[in-house]
Amino acid sequence: MGPDPYDRNCPTRQLLDRIGDQWTVLIVGALTDGPLRFTEIGRRVDGISQKVLTQTLRSLVRDGILTRTAYPTIPPKVEYELTPLGCNLSEPLDMLDRWARRHMSSVREARDAYDAEHTPASA
Amino acid sequence: MGPDPYDRNCPTRQLLDRIGDQWTVLIVGALTDGPLRFTEIGRRVDGISQKVLTQTLRSLVRDGILTRTAYPTIPPKVEYELTPLGCNLSEPLDMLDRWARRHMSSVREARDAYDAEHTPASA
Repeated sequence: MGPDPYDRNCPTRQLLDRIGDQWTVLIVGALTDGPLRFTEIGRRVDGISQKVLTQTLRSLVRDGILTRTAYPTIPPKVEYELTPLGCNLSEPLDMLDRWARRHMSSVREARDAYDAEHTPASA
Repeated sequence: MGPDPYDRNCPTRQLLDRIGDQWTVLIVGALTDGPLRFTEIGRRVDGISQKVLTQTLRSLVRDGILTRTAYPTIPPKVEYELTPLGCNLSEPLDMLDRWARRHMSSVREARDAYDAEHTPASA
């Protein structure tokens, strides 16, 4: 028996939760063009809180997806960069991003149809 | 300007959150072999609560990813099945599932190294 995210006790279940997270998708996507500083990532990923950005970056570094490099400059400069494992992950995440962009209109049509069917008609 | 999940107000942001959700990945994956009943999906996706399963299935039907068919049998039979849009989504989600299975050991090694570095050495 190999790793199986369908099993609640398999660590791949929690890994799947982490990599599919919207913030992971957006942060890893933002870093595919090269390393960025904390504030630059925060600007790219519109609406992410400082706290969630900090936590997500730390998890991604711990998981070996990103490296964090602190330069001893004044003011200090901290950069995040994809590792080879992170570059590898960016492929499926990019597919997810592109799927959302490409199929948003179909999803919207489906929602409108569903809501029309499930909302009581007004008199 | 097309749809852009980096913009917090773009509906693709919320769609990305939905499709990358671990339950979506596992439910859509379970349905790639054909339609399943509510209880069958619950058995496949070990550890999902009835409430979360119900909510996730409803969202996926509303988004046009799944169809829900109720058969007027005794006892009543309700089946969920991927739509063509859902089949299309299953490709990137399957990549995510396979990535987690394939790279779990690398992630685990990275975590061990990180934790060793960030935990104060015992005396």
